[in-house]
Formats: sequence, structure tokens, C-alpha cells
Amino acid sequence: MNEALFFTNNLWMMIATVLVFIMHLGFSCLEAGLVRSKNVVNILFKNVMIIAIGILTYTLVGFNLMYPGEAFAGSFFGFAGFGLTAPEGEAIAYAGGAYTYWTDFIFQAMFAATAATIVSGAVAERIKLESFLLFAMIFVAISYPITGMWHWGGGWLKELGFYDFAGSTLVHAVGGWGALAAIIILGPRKGKYSEGKIKPIPGHSMPLAAMGVFFLWFGWFGFNGGSVLSADPSAVSLVFVTTSIAAAAGAVGAFFVSFLMFKTHDLSMVLNGVLGGLVGITAGADLMGPTSALMIGLIAGGIIPLSVVFFDKIKADDPVGATSVHLVCGIWGTLAVGIFGAKAGLSQLINQFIGTAAVGVFTFAFAFGLMYALKMTVGIRVTEQEEDEGLDIAEHGMSSYTGFVGS
Amino acid sequence: MNEALFFTNNLWMMIATVLVFIMHLGFSCLEAGLVRSKNVVNILFKNVMIIAIGILTYTLVGFNLMYPGEAFAGSFFGFAGFGLTAPEGEAIAYAGGAYTYWTDFIFQAMFAATAATIVSGAVAERIKLESFLLFAMIFVAISYPITGMWHWGGGWLKELGFYDFAGSTLVHAVGGWGALAAIIILGPRKGKYSEGKIKPIPGHSMPLAAMGVFFLWFGWFGFNGGSVLSADPSAVSLVFVTTSIAAAAGAVGAFFVSFLMFKTHDLSMVLNGVLGGLVGITAGADLMGPTSALMIGLIAGGIIPLSVVFFDKIKADDPVGATSVHLVCGIWGTLAVGIFGAKAGLSQLINQFIGTAAVGVFTFAFAFGLMYALKMTVGIRVTEQEEDEGLDIAEHGMSSYTGFVGS
Amino acid sequence: MNEALFFTNNLWMMIATVLVFIMHLGFSCLEAGLVRSKNVVNILFKNVMIIAIGILTYTLVGFNLMYPGEAFAGSFFGFAGFGLTAPEGEAIAYAGGAYTYWTDFIFQAMFAATAATIVSGAVAERIKLESFLLFAMIFVAISYPITGMWHWGGGWLKELGFYDFAGSTLVHAVGGWGALAAIIILGPRKGKYSEGKIKPIPGHSMPLAAMGVFFLWFGWFGFNGGSVLSADPSAVSLVFVTTSIAAAAGAVGAFFVSFLMFKTHDLSMVLNGVLGGLVGITAGADLMGPTSALMIGLIAGGIIPLSVVFFDKIKADDPVGATSVHLVCGIWGTLAVGIFGAKAGLSQLINQFIGTAAVGVFTFAFAFGLMYALKMTVGIRVTEQEEDEGLDIAEHGMSSYTGFVGS
Repeated sequence: MNEALFFTNNLWMMIATVLVFIMHLGFSCLEAGLVRSKNVVNILFKNVMIIAIGILTYTLVGFNLMYPGEAFAGSFFGFAGFGLTAPEGEAIAYAGGAYTYWTDFIFQAMFAATAATIVSGAVAERIKLESFLLFAMIFVAISYPITGMWHWGGGWLKELGFYDFAGSTLVHAVGGWGALAAIIILGPRKGKYSEGKIKPIPGHSMPLAAMGVFFLWFGWFGFNGGSVLSADPSAVSLVFVTTSIAAAAGAVGAFFVSFLMFKTHDLSMVLNGVLGGLVGITAGADLMGPTSALMIGLIAGGIIPLSVVFFDKIKADDPVGATSVHLVCGIWGTLAVGIFGAKAGLSQLINQFIGTAAVGVFTFAFAFGLMYALKMTVGIRVTEQEEDEGLDIAEHGMSSYTGFVGS
Repeated sequence: MNEALFFTNNLWMMIATVLVFIMHLGFSCLEAGLVRSKNVVNILFKNVMIIAIGILTYTLVGFNLMYPGEAFAGSFFGFAGFGLTAPEGEAIAYAGGAYTYWTDFIFQAMFAATAATIVSGAVAERIKLESFLLFAMIFVAISYPITGMWHWGGGWLKELGFYDFAGSTLVHAVGGWGALAAIIILGPRKGKYSEGKIKPIPGHSMPLAAMGVFFLWFGWFGFNGGSVLSADPSAVSLVFVTTSIAAAAGAVGAFFVSFLMFKTHDLSMVLNGVLGGLVGITAGADLMGPTSALMIGLIAGGIIPLSVVFFDKIKADDPVGATSVHLVCGIWGTLAVGIFGAKAGLSQLINQFIGTAAVGVFTFAFAFGLMYALKMTVGIRVTEQEEDEGLDIAEHGMSSYTGFVGS
Repeated sequence: MNEALFFTNNLWMMIATVLVFIMHLGFSCLEAGLVRSKNVVNILFKNVMIIAIGILTYTLVGFNLMYPGEAFAGSFFGFAGFGLTAPEGEAIAYAGGAYTYWTDFIFQAMFAATAATIVSGAVAERIKLESFLLFAMIFVAISYPITGMWHWGGGWLKELGFYDFAGSTLVHAVGGWGALAAIIILGPRKGKYSEGKIKPIPGHSMPLAAMGVFFLWFGWFGFNGGSVLSADPSAVSLVFVTTSIAAAAGAVGAFFVSFLMFKTHDLSMVLNGVLGGLVGITAGADLMGPTSALMIGLIAGGIIPLSVVFFDKIKADDPVGATSVHLVCGIWGTLAVGIFGAKAGLSQLINQFIGTAAVGVFTFAFAFGLMYALKMTVGIRVTEQEEDEGLDIAEHGMSSYTGFVGS
């Protein structure tokens, strides 16, 4: 391949890596903003550790589970061994010359931790720190790469014809299923559902939450745009357009549906509407035109308030709405590939359903079993007293806003 | 054109798009930081909706009003129809092969919402949410692209010889004129000017304001650098240098002038000084050397405290200083093209004056008429009681910092 | 050289510039978060002025002191004159065609201010604003470029065989030595060490501190990745991998060591652990494999809590831990080039020791002398009353969080 094209393709993949990295700041801000101020240090601590754990476990085992190549690879499982070794003489020619082995690894590594981060928000304000870190480590090291391999690593979903461009299912629904399993076992926050009522527990800082959404949208240009796996101008620029239109339409969908439902302009709904639109377009960002992107985003955004109310009704307490955004809109986006755009059609829709269901069953079972095992051994929930006091003091011995004085 | 050059040029335009996108976070933080905590949810809500509305209206009509090509195009107005259609067979070869049709669209779309965002800050703390969103939608969909077409779309200002590299007039002064028209009709915040005195109303969070300025400077590398419309190394790198020097000089100019005026080191002046320097260099960032950039930035920064005091004297209440930064420094930067750098000269200066004045007259009249029509119909101002209570509760039923506890 | 390669190489260097720029936001957030709320405006003011001063002094003298070329250049000192002049006919072909003169300048200019920013955090909460700005200006204009020239400008450390890829010594330890000299002369904050006890003074906003660390990591992709000085795919992508692994390992190292020492999960230790890992890998990011990067980062992160305790024991009061992160880990990273990776060996280790010691002696002496001269003339410390009241009111007449209301 042309050397200059190789430089440019690789450059885009590296920049996309940097953009996906900053999504972890987006998650940190969003989650920190949407919890109470007594649990903020805990959220930040978890998010810093998750990106660290994500990179290190992906180095050790994840990358070689997800992209096993010929090594021990069946359609359902493969493993190319521990640690990283750039293939002899292939460091540069890797991936047909589109990017280097190291670029491939680091781009994928930035994705890996995302699934655990999604869980982090849903279990906020009551999970034990060390149990969560163990959960995150195992979930990211084993569960995420196995289902990822099914499609992106060339496994059975690839063979089936399932399509998930950048991870509506493989990343977002995976995180969402993990979150759902975790909050079922963990139970709601104290006082959230009592005497048949749902107590609203608003977040402590809307600026933090809004900043988080902007960073996530910003990073999504790398998340979706980098999933082209080259700097191909027409493919990447189309992805930028569909991603942006879906995010914008998500805001508008959530704006109208939440106004109809609540008769007010709820900022958290609109923020989650943007994220819903982004998650929704992710499976087919390269297949859609502007109108399809608009429809997918509008519907995703409209789903958000309905889904948030639904999860509260079944008493699945999710402080940040992660299940609505990542699980529900992740499934919606995956199915939308069979409904809109270049691959629309009934047989594709069936494949999409099979893929998202299979990944969901595996992930939910894995996360449920893992969380249950942790509950039976080290315990997963802080004491009631610690929950009242806040995890910042209980787990970290410090406050998020010491000596904070407004005048 | 060389395929690899095409990839690289297009890549830079896409990255510039991402950088301009993050300027909307910059505006959000800056405006949120400079208002009182009771109006923060409202500011954030507006800014999220503005970027959504900006992208969607630009998709629907704006892009085709601004770049009509041969379609119905006179020198003053043209329209290439509703919605986006990549030109048959031209998706890739578009723009002489420098970037794709989709890249062109999304880069321009990120610019479009900026003008409305500038207005958002100036009318903060007293405008009705729904009226503002209607104003923003119409202003961005119709007014901004029409004057944009006059120069960038090949209209009469292009023919005249007017020069505005990245939008000191076409973006910033346009937003500033819209802001000025809006605040004249809307009136000052309650209690701002009473008994002949000017009551200072400081912003609630200087960290947010400072972060906003850093994000804006960060994004400006894409705003100005992307306006080269290719990755041409000498052109883009010179623009980076002049942009940075002008921003730095803006800080220094504001530092000294505000110290002379107020005998203290006013952070908000220095922050707006940076922005003034950036707005000032924008019209001629590709025409200047380091010394000219320094002069333009120093003067722009020095103008800021003078202008802020002036607008307060005429009782034009602008909580964030948007008119000083975007209108006054936008005009200054436009005129500076006739004074400094490669195009300096009297006939150029006259063209610069004609261009900025013509755009100003059109925009001010459009914004004034639109805001007046909204005032006569749906109303534009919240009640006094709502203003006292804050727009967060009145319009959104929520607080920006619920349960915020410093210890 | 191939034109398309030139475009791509230059593009990466420009993007790296933008990433290094945003590190100044990272420092601003980190330092603002780790001080008390009464000193936040002051920190933000300093950081905005530092980047402005850094760019302008580098324009005026710094660049030509650091890269004097043949002009008056000995092995210890050279100067190519005041101001910037793109070499005739070389503006494009500069640096063997890898990037333009302007790109070279602006990338280096973004580095220059970093050293002063490091000092800013260490002297926070008690230094006089104007004295600090004078210190920063002279330190950045003269001290930083002279020692930078010794290695990167082709001086005696280059000839010796000393190696510092992206500045563990030349940037971070330089800033750290400056910080140490400054805090020795300045003395600790009032009440920090009294009656033989060390009083903890926690920062006022952990979200700000955490955001700062994410921005710094984000920017470090440009700091280290840009130091390849081209977009060479295998070199830059390896640097991305080693940088990320070291940062992640730094978090893990600090996690375990601080838990052993304090029996709790201290967020500020983990945050500084990430930074320690990043500083540690900076000298040899291009020489290491994943395992070496892991070791360097783990050790750097583990050093952090030990070093923080040590500096408190010798009563060197550093509110943000800048000396631990930048000085101690900067020295560690420099020495690590002789211990791990492609250049490991005793003679290299000796060269590394000589280089970091020589730069340290020069910088410490320069900073000490400069700060002492300022103390003897304009004074460097605010009054006790101003310190109690806070620098925001004393130096700026404003508060960081006016009218901030949590509900």
C-alpha cells in the first residue's frame, strides 16, 4: 500500500484513540454530576481505576481473546495467549497496511473499559468499591472480549451476517446488560422506593452532567469515525454526519416526549436524549443517510423518558439512566440496521435480533453470575450507615468539596 | 488530485469539525460560569438545544442557503432546495478533491450554531426559554446563512473584495448584532441598573468560566485552522501561530487596561481578553505575521474592559460580555485586515468597512424584527417573580446544584 | 520528500500542538481543584497568564535560545536573535520536510509554558501574583530554553549521549526544581506545620482535580506522540501504547502503595499516580515495550505517596504535589532510560544521571537566585491577613463562587 495513505490512515486511527479516551472523562463527569455530592469522590475514583484496569487487562488478555486470529479460534471462543507481541515483520504491514499493530491494540483498548464504565453509573451510591473493581476487572477482561470476538473478531455472528458497526450491541448493550444484572442483585438505593412511591434523587451538579455529555459526543466522533478503520474520506465523513444528526435528533426527541410526559423541560432527559441518539446510530452509522439518521435519533431520544419511567416502575434503580441509554437504545440501534439504511430488510432484522439477543443472554448471565458470586463472598453492598454517610467518607475518608465556600 | 493528499486534507477538515464542535462546550461553560447559580440549568439546556437545532436546521435549509452554487443564486440570495443530497458522482471529487461533500457540510454545520450561542449568553437570566429557542432556530436557519452567502457562498461581498477569513464578521459580529438587538428589546435584568447605579452581578463559578475560555481557544484551532479548507502545511501552521499569539496578546492587553481602569486583576476581563484576541485575529489569521497578530490581539484585549464599561453605561445588560467580545472585537478584527498584514491598504479598509456594516445592518434588522415579533406574540421575558426565583425552577422545575454539600 | 507525507507529518505535529495546549487546562483544573476555594480565582488567573506569557516570551526570545542553530551556538549557550523569522525559502522544507517552521515554533511554544505552570501549583495559596508572573516570565524566557538547548537544541548533553525523549528532565524535572526552589524560599502555608504536626489542607473540588488529570493524560498523547517529530506510524503508535500503559500502571501503583500506607483509597494519590506514570514514561516512551512501560509506571505511581509524605516531613509545603509528580518522577523516568528498554545499560544510566543532575543544578540555582532576588526587591509573599482572607479577594477583589447556592 501507498506509504502516504498508510501514514494518514494510521494517523486517523490514533486520533480516534485519543477521542475515545476522552469519553472516559465524559462518563466521569456525567456520573459525578448525576449522583449526590457525598458519593462523588467514589465515582471519580472508580472511573480513574476503570480506565487503568481496562488498559492493563486488555494488554494482558483482552486483546488476544477478542482478536485471536487463527490461535485456538473457534466461532465462539479463541485466545492468542497472554501479553502483547507485535507480529514479527508485520508491525507495520498489519491490517493490510491501514494501521500498525500498536494502533490496533490501543484503539481497541480504549473501547474495552467503556463497558465497565457503563455499569459504574448504574450501581453508583451503594456498591462496595473493591467488589466493583473486581467485577469491572473480570467483566472487561473476559466477558466483553468474548462477545466482541463473536462479531469483530470473526466469530459466529460475523458468519451469520449480523452487523454492528461500532458497538450498539457489542459495547453499549453489553455495558447495559451488565448494569441491569448488577442493579437487580444490588437492589435500589435506600429510600428510593418506599411506601409505593418513587423518590426523585436529583444529581448534585448539572454543569458536570452537561459537560459529560459534550465530552461523550466529542469522543463519539472517534468511537464511530474510528470504526471505519481507515481515514477513507467518504466513509468517515458520512459517519460524522449521521452521528451528529442522530445526536441532535436525540435531543429533540427527548425534548418533546419528556415535555409531553412531565410538562417541563427536563435537562437530564435532553442530555440522555443526546446519548440515546448516539448509542442508537452506532450500529449503523456507516449505512444511513441523513433522513435515516434523523429517524433513528428521534426515536432513540423519545425512548429515553419512557424507558427511565419504566425502569423506575420495575424498581430497577439506576441513578444515571445508563440502562435506558446504553441497553435500550443499544438494542434499538442494533435493530434499526434492519429497518433503515443500506442493509434494511427482514432477514437482516432477524439477524440483528439474533445477535443482540445472543450477546444479551451471554452477558447478562455472566454479569449476574459474577455479581452473585461476589455477593456471596466478599459482599457487594455498603452498610446502611455507610450509604447514609456517603461513600466518599466511608470508602475514601475524604469529601468531594472540602472547604467549599460560596459567597 | 493525489489520493493521499485528498485523504490528509479531508482528515484535517474532519478534525477541525470536531474542534469547532467542542467550542459549544466552551460557550456552555463560559455562560454557565458567568450567570448566577439559579439560572445555570437554563443556560445548559439552551446550549444543548442550540447545537441540536443548529445541526438540524443547517441540514434542512441552512447549508443550501449559504452555498447555493448555481441554484437560484443571485449576489444577495440563493437556495439550492431542502435537505442534503451529495452531488451525483461528486461525493468524493467535491471541492476540487480537497474534501468530501459530507465533510464540507458537517464542518459548516458546526459553525452555524455559533451565532445563536453568542446571543444565548447576552440574553441570559431573563428570556423565556421557548421564545429563545424559536429565535435561535430562525436566526440560524435564515439570517446567518444569507449573510454568510454574501461572502463565503460567492455573493456580492466576495465580488467586492471584502475579506473575512474565518468569520470575525460573518460569525462573530453576526452573533454580536443579534445579541445587541435582543438585549435592547428584552431590557436589562431586574435590579441591574437602578437609581443611577450599575449593580455588579458576578458569575457563580469562575472555574467554569475559565474552562469555557480554554475550550474555546482549543476549538479555535479548528475554527481558524479549518478555514484554510485544506491541510496545506504552511497556511495552517501560520494560522495556528497567529491565532495563538493574538489570544495571548489579548490576555495581556486586557490585563493592563483593566488594571489601569479598575486597579485590580479582574479574571473575567482577562478571560474575555483572550476571546477578544481570538475574535480579532479571525478575519485575517492567514494574512498576518507574528507582529501584526500581536498588535491585533493586544488592541482587541485592551478594547474589552472599555467596551464592557461602555455597554453598561448605555444600559445594554449583557451578563457574559458577548457584545464586547463578539461584536466589538469582530468589527475590529474585520477592519484590521485593512490595517495590518498582507492585504493592508485604504481600499481594502473601505471594503472591510462596507462588508461589516452591510452584514451588521441586515443582521441587526433581522434580529430586531424577529425578537420584536416574538415579543408581540408569544412574549419574550419571564415574569419578575420567575426572574427572582431563577429560570431553573421557573422553566425547568429543577436546580443546578441539588443537595450540593461542601464540608 | 513526498508531498503527501509532508502534509501528514505536519498535520500530526499541529494536532499534537493542540493536545499540548489543552494540558494547560489540565493544570488549571488540577491546581484549582486542589486548593481552597478562597484561592481559586488566583490559580485560574495565573494559569491563563502563564500560557499567554509562555507563548509571547517564546516568540520573543525562547525559541531562538533553545534552537539557535549555528547562531552564536556553543555547547552550553546560543541565541539566534529576537523574534521570529521563517528562514528564507525554508518555511516549507524546514526540518527535512517533516513540518514547517511555524509548526516547529508553535509546538515548542506550547511546551515552554509548562515548566512555569508546574511551579504555579507548588507555590499556590501564598505567593504574590505579580512576583509570580515576573518569576514565570523570566524562568520560561531564559532558564527553560537554555537547558532545553543542551539536549534538544544540539548542545553538550546531546553530544554526551544523554537521552530524554519528550522531557522527563527537560520539562518536568525543570518545572519541579523550579517549584522546589520557590517553596523553600517562600515557606509553607500558614498553619500547615505547627506544633510538630502536619495539618492536612484538602482541595476544595475533587471533580476539578480529576478532570485536570484526564485533560493532562489526553494532552500527553500530543506531548509524547508529537515528540516523535513526524507521524511515523510505528513510532507514534508505540509511544501511545507505552504512554497509556504507564499512566494506567501509575494509577495501580499509587492505589496499592497508598492503601498500604494510609489504609484507605485516596483519590488524590491515585490521580497523582497517573501523572507520575506519565512523567516517568516521558523520557523513554519511544524505547520501551509494554512490560517496561508497565514497570516504569508502577514504580512511578508507587513513589508518589512516599514522596508526598517525604516532602511534608521536610516541611516543603506543596499544595498540589507538583514536586513529587514532576521532580521525583521526572528524575525517575530519566534514570529509567538506563534501566529498561532499548538503551538500557550502565554507561547510559551514568549519562542519564549526569544529564538530570546538571539540568537540576542549573535550574535550581537559577530559580533560587531569581526567587531570592524577587523576595529582596518586590517581595514574594502576601501578608498573613491576605493569606487568611484568601488571594481571590486580596489580589483580585472577587470570589470564585459568588452567589453559589446549592439547594
